[in-house]
Amino acid sequence: MSVPNTAPSTATGVSTSEGPLKVPPFKHPLDPLTPDEIVAVSHSVRRYVAEKTVINAIRFITSYLLPPPKKAVLAFLGIPLQSGEKPEPATEIVRKAEVDFVDAVNGHAYNTIVALHGQDWTVESVQKLPEGVQPQISVEELLLCEEIIRADERVVKLAAEVGVKPEQLHADGWAIGFDARFPENTRIQQALMFARWGRHENLYAHPLDFIPVVDSISKQVIHIDFPPTYKKKEAKSLFASTGVDVELSVDSTAPPDLDADAREVANRKRLPPPQKSHDFLPDLLSQKEGFKFRDDVKPLHVVQPEGVSFKVDGHVVEWQKWKMHVAFHHREGIAISTITYNDDGNVRPIFYRLSLSEMVVPYAAPEHPHPRKHAFDVGEYGMGTMANELTLGCDCLGKIHYLPGAYVAHDGNAVVVKNTICIHEEDAGLLWKHTDFRVGGRAQAVRSRRLVIQQICTLANYEYIFNYMFYQDGNIEVEIRLTGILQVYVQDEEEPNPFGTTLAPGINAHYHQHLFSVRVDPMVDGLQNTVVETDILPLPNAPTGSAANHLGNAFIARGTPIAVASEGARDFDYTKDRRWSIVNPKVVHPHSKKNAGYTIMGKGAMTPMMALPDSIVAKRAQFATRPLWVVKDVEGPHGGRMWPSGKYVPQTRGVPPDSLANWAKGDDKLSEEDVLLFITMGITHIPRPEDWPVMPVEHLRLLFRPTHFFEANPSMDVPGADDKQSCPAFPEATNASTGGAHCAH
Amino acid sequence: MSVPNTAPSTATGVSTSEGPLKVPPFKHPLDPLTPDEIVAVSHSVRRYVAEKTVINAIRFITSYLLPPPKKAVLAFLGIPLQSGEKPEPATEIVRKAEVDFVDAVNGHAYNTIVALHGQDWTVESVQKLPEGVQPQISVEELLLCEEIIRADERVVKLAAEVGVKPEQLHADGWAIGFDARFPENTRIQQALMFARWGRHENLYAHPLDFIPVVDSISKQVIHIDFPPTYKKKEAKSLFASTGVDVELSVDSTAPPDLDADAREVANRKRLPPPQKSHDFLPDLLSQKEGFKFRDDVKPLHVVQPEGVSFKVDGHVVEWQKWKMHVAFHHREGIAISTITYNDDGNVRPIFYRLSLSEMVVPYAAPEHPHPRKHAFDVGEYGMGTMANELTLGCDCLGKIHYLPGAYVAHDGNAVVVKNTICIHEEDAGLLWKHTDFRVGGRAQAVRSRRLVIQQICTLANYEYIFNYMFYQDGNIEVEIRLTGILQVYVQDEEEPNPFGTTLAPGINAHYHQHLFSVRVDPMVDGLQNTVVETDILPLPNAPTGSAANHLGNAFIARGTPIAVASEGARDFDYTKDRRWSIVNPKVVHPHSKKNAGYTIMGKGAMTPMMALPDSIVAKRAQFATRPLWVVKDVEGPHGGRMWPSGKYVPQTRGVPPDSLANWAKGDDKLSEEDVLLFITMGITHIPRPEDWPVMPVEHLRLLFRPTHFFEANPSMDVPGADDKQSCPAFPEATNASTGGAHCAH
Ligand SMILES: [Co+2]
Ligand SMILES: [Co+2]
Repeated sequence: MSVPNTAPSTATGVSTSEGPLKVPPFKHPLDPLTPDEIVAVSHSVRRYVAEKTVINAIRFITSYLLPPPKKAVLAFLGIPLQSGEKPEPATEIVRKAEVDFVDAVNGHAYNTIVALHGQDWTVESVQKLPEGVQPQISVEELLLCEEIIRADERVVKLAAEVGVKPEQLHADGWAIGFDARFPENTRIQQALMFARWGRHENLYAHPLDFIPVVDSISKQVIHIDFPPTYKKKEAKSLFASTGVDVELSVDSTAPPDLDADAREVANRKRLPPPQKSHDFLPDLLSQKEGFKFRDDVKPLHVVQPEGVSFKVDGHVVEWQKWKMHVAFHHREGIAISTITYNDDGNVRPIFYRLSLSEMVVPYAAPEHPHPRKHAFDVGEYGMGTMANELTLGCDCLGKIHYLPGAYVAHDGNAVVVKNTICIHEEDAGLLWKHTDFRVGGRAQAVRSRRLVIQQICTLANYEYIFNYMFYQDGNIEVEIRLTGILQVYVQDEEEPNPFGTTLAPGINAHYHQHLFSVRVDPMVDGLQNTVVETDILPLPNAPTGSAANHLGNAFIARGTPIAVASEGARDFDYTKDRRWSIVNPKVVHPHSKKNAGYTIMGKGAMTPMMALPDSIVAKRAQFATRPLWVVKDVEGPHGGRMWPSGKYVPQTRGVPPDSLANWAKGDDKLSEEDVLLFITMGITHIPRPEDWPVMPVEHLRLLFRPTHFFEANPSMDVPGADDKQSCPAFPEATNASTGGAHCAH
Repeated sequence: MSVPNTAPSTATGVSTSEGPLKVPPFKHPLDPLTPDEIVAVSHSVRRYVAEKTVINAIRFITSYLLPPPKKAVLAFLGIPLQSGEKPEPATEIVRKAEVDFVDAVNGHAYNTIVALHGQDWTVESVQKLPEGVQPQISVEELLLCEEIIRADERVVKLAAEVGVKPEQLHADGWAIGFDARFPENTRIQQALMFARWGRHENLYAHPLDFIPVVDSISKQVIHIDFPPTYKKKEAKSLFASTGVDVELSVDSTAPPDLDADAREVANRKRLPPPQKSHDFLPDLLSQKEGFKFRDDVKPLHVVQPEGVSFKVDGHVVEWQKWKMHVAFHHREGIAISTITYNDDGNVRPIFYRLSLSEMVVPYAAPEHPHPRKHAFDVGEYGMGTMANELTLGCDCLGKIHYLPGAYVAHDGNAVVVKNTICIHEEDAGLLWKHTDFRVGGRAQAVRSRRLVIQQICTLANYEYIFNYMFYQDGNIEVEIRLTGILQVYVQDEEEPNPFGTTLAPGINAHYHQHLFSVRVDPMVDGLQNTVVETDILPLPNAPTGSAANHLGNAFIARGTPIAVASEGARDFDYTKDRRWSIVNPKVVHPHSKKNAGYTIMGKGAMTPMMALPDSIVAKRAQFATRPLWVVKDVEGPHGGRMWPSGKYVPQTRGVPPDSLANWAKGDDKLSEEDVLLFITMGITHIPRPEDWPVMPVEHLRLLFRPTHFFEANPSMDVPGADDKQSCPAFPEATNASTGGAHCAH
């Protein structure tokens, strides 16, 4: 049964089940929970809670597969622990689910483990989380935030004062970030406020000048913040010592006491929202005077008359010697697991799991309450929960296969996004080419085909496009594309803007960074891997003219294994063109004599965090302070080390105990171990007017490249390029001297 | 008339003209010389030389358009010197050619200026170049090098000693690089030697152990070098102080005296070439035992049923509000000039000219003669001269338009490459997207189309693919893709390899860097521009907890104009996430109040040079020592400042006087001036076995992005994505819950 109307616009509908459950056995032990399974798990939890606990009313927050131990999965799939050895004997795998929920009456939070036995899901444990620990914020709570502010009389009155009617009032619910004035155990959000002149008008064109804080359990506005304003520098400025030529309407960036009159403390007039529309929907754009769509973009189609080159069996995808498991994950969006490459009959494991484990977007403005804006879009909201339903010919071209996703609703039903991951092939330009330049010499050119696994997520105003791409030459690429709408705040006329860009009159986009933590659980030819840091440097102690370096050109590559846990946090060094590789010390290349590995190529995406090392956001998001972290994986009853900023991210106030910074301590051996890598990629986004009203995509790329892994270029067996459908652009003007011949081999 | 058989395999044929010349007037003053014009210019030079000089016999080396002054070109095209102002009145433009040739008898080099008056090309000047100055090396001289070594008895005998027959002998002619033992005024090359077991077999699989030096004027082998070999470290090692654990068979990396017995000095046995074949042509691959081409790459076509979205008139291309002039250049390959964008009726100039002005590939091995390997592929050989003839469905997909190229042959005829630049469109994924996540919210997705201007060049073993790409959002991207075959040398069994990778038995690929100098002659809203260096930094002097920065998150962007010539050489700073912009200080964005500009995004391609700062290669290739140089453009009778390592690159022995390092000196004002930028992009290539026998492409990307240039996102008028030909990958398995709907707007 489907109840489509209450789902967010990124989802397809809500799915519920009645009668006896028909739970199919999993095909792959990492298959995510199906909608039916989610509903069945909810039933089981609800029954258990009613019978055995004093919990009042359940608000389901998350419900997802608790993955079986790594070695059990590998044994099940017949993947050996070390390439060339025999796989371990298979053991029984119990399918388990993990559920977080809150008591809708008092906000207490619980974690539950449920296991499938036969056709029945049985609760194994219900654990009350410590006071102040907050599970993820659900999409329903985000929607609820808007309802709460609309129902609040003070909010309605404040809006009316700047000419905004109740029905025009909108709010993006955000995690509170950090605000020590509120008790840790209230489940709160900040409501970033906007007005909207019509049903589908771009609300971000009309930011409001106050920020309510809501409690999603009591469903009340509990406080309203008023940011101060900037003015030109005066004799005595708060920023005098910083070199920034402005003054603030208050004497500190710290939050005022809760019992002060926040509006009065801000010491500024009310700022009405900018009135002008800045739309992006075609029908609304068309109404703009003088607006005209381009009429000179001729159609371009991707046509695959014989179908696609990949095979799909449930969540298992096979393409061009690659084999992998692709799963929707409510938190990471996409998780790709058990990635192997068939190297001439030898199935070689490469990564056990690859995913986006966390991200943070710290903003630059210091004045309260703006520093609260540092969204952890993975840990606080869940990238999968925010994933779009994709459509043909829109998000991808050609022949597309979609995978569905599902997450739990407050009431225990499943919210379904039926096409949330798209899988398709793309031509990626030339793969390799060589021409013998001698007279009569021959050429060979081969085109590159790639498999693209894509998801698009809407985080309130922003959009992230995640592409996991596999290539015929053994490369794996993680590409993140940023688009959507900038987070904006209202700006007074003539107000200085030291921490943002004025995009349009009254519209201020604060500087910010997007910092992503890509989690790599490697198994390069087996689970025991070492990460090596390689520096390129001029031959040491060998000046130009010396006997060892006569012309001064000598340079070397110096590799250092990252050997112990306390050395796991690494820095980038541009001057040494530093790079890192994941190698298997047991596997030696027959010719180069170097260890088989995968090298991490991400220089273009490496970005230092700009918040101070002891800032609140740097503490909460330790992962973002370094481009690479290597830690040992430790599996336990709740799976491996998954979450670099902690499992429960909302409202943390410092470095969470079970998080990355604490794993990178001590003397644990990291070489030839079951290691994990957390790679930080990001950009510093100094907004441009060209990013408004919708931002053209910006790309972040991270490449994993086989190095001493294959005996030679593994794509030598890709047939030569010879596309018969390519033709001259202007056939009428084409003659013997300008026309193109087709490829000759 | 066409004489196809003597052209290198990258070209189409040789074109000669007889009878009266029909020279059409140029359409655009930067149109390159046509084959007819090249032949006419040669006739004119030959006649003049015969009548008025004592020069014996001309070997034409280069013959190309001498571009008219910038302001004359802009006036001719009606482009104003400052956006919004009236263009200057047009003045007469005299079409001129510049010709370099050498006296084939004595090697003296000459530069000639020839001007077109009516139908006649008239020699304006013939200037003898100073002793030791060497014009580019022609492709015929490269081919000649192989003939010379084959005709040399000593070479034939040395080859025979290691089992190589005369007909198996091959050589890649390389510039000598640097070797102070030979007089500057001999025109010499080093011959990197290979054997080949069959007509089209991969010769790089069989490197030889000696390196002849040839004089292309006397057509003689004048010396033969024998590299030493490495062995395991002994008690007293040349490399003891360097930390590298090897010993060399000689006691210095310096070259032995010319009168010493080079073979004896090398102090090692002869090394026969590895015997095994490593082929890449499909017919040869197929003969390999057990080899099988992949049969599961299904066809993928790009179809444009209504044709392309661009228009071409000669060399002028118009596409999606962009307009530009695209020219073949024998040295730079592609030069794109007078790039403008039609911003809602206002034609705004962006770049006057964009091209690859130089590059260098320094290798890491210090032992003589390997340090001579540091090819300047632009200045020594000419990227255009090495450009491939392209074929449909092979080098690009879809509807393609080709532009031809022509360069002069030794005898004054024109070598023609009829399809050397391909122009086509590509889908580039999503351009922007936003979804309103609210229940019932709407989405809009727009796909990105790009115009790709591509050339592929073969530099002996290597291939470079140059893509100049224009986007609908105002971005311009320069992408360089590297492929082809690694430069290799023979390696003894068990020989240590501290400066290279052993790709296959006996095959050693030395470490090296590819460092490219992209020359940007900007005219952002006019010729007077300023380059601004922007650092991102935490708010200075404002610790966490201070009144100015309570939570510690504040950061700012600090821009500093590069104001005087002596400050023109810039360094990258990763810790400040440094970036540079080219701005027009006269043009202020109406809302952001910042100057209109284009930002340079090239972090991923920035690479420090590894040769020592006082090394020979760093002196010759000063450009490569910094990621950005800003200098003032100075036009003269030979055009502007074009060549960062000097106009005449072969055989330079230090910093050439008229080169980049000398332009970046003194107090010349750089702000609001006619500036030039030289941007260094590159990679450090530590070869992998996976790069063998042909290297899968590696990408280098440099993006120019409008910043405060457009009032808002200039691509808001691109119609929404709606490709009706996209369809499910597995239609038979598609049902209501898995199928994809088409885009709804
Ligand atoms: Co951003
Ligand atoms: Co290379």
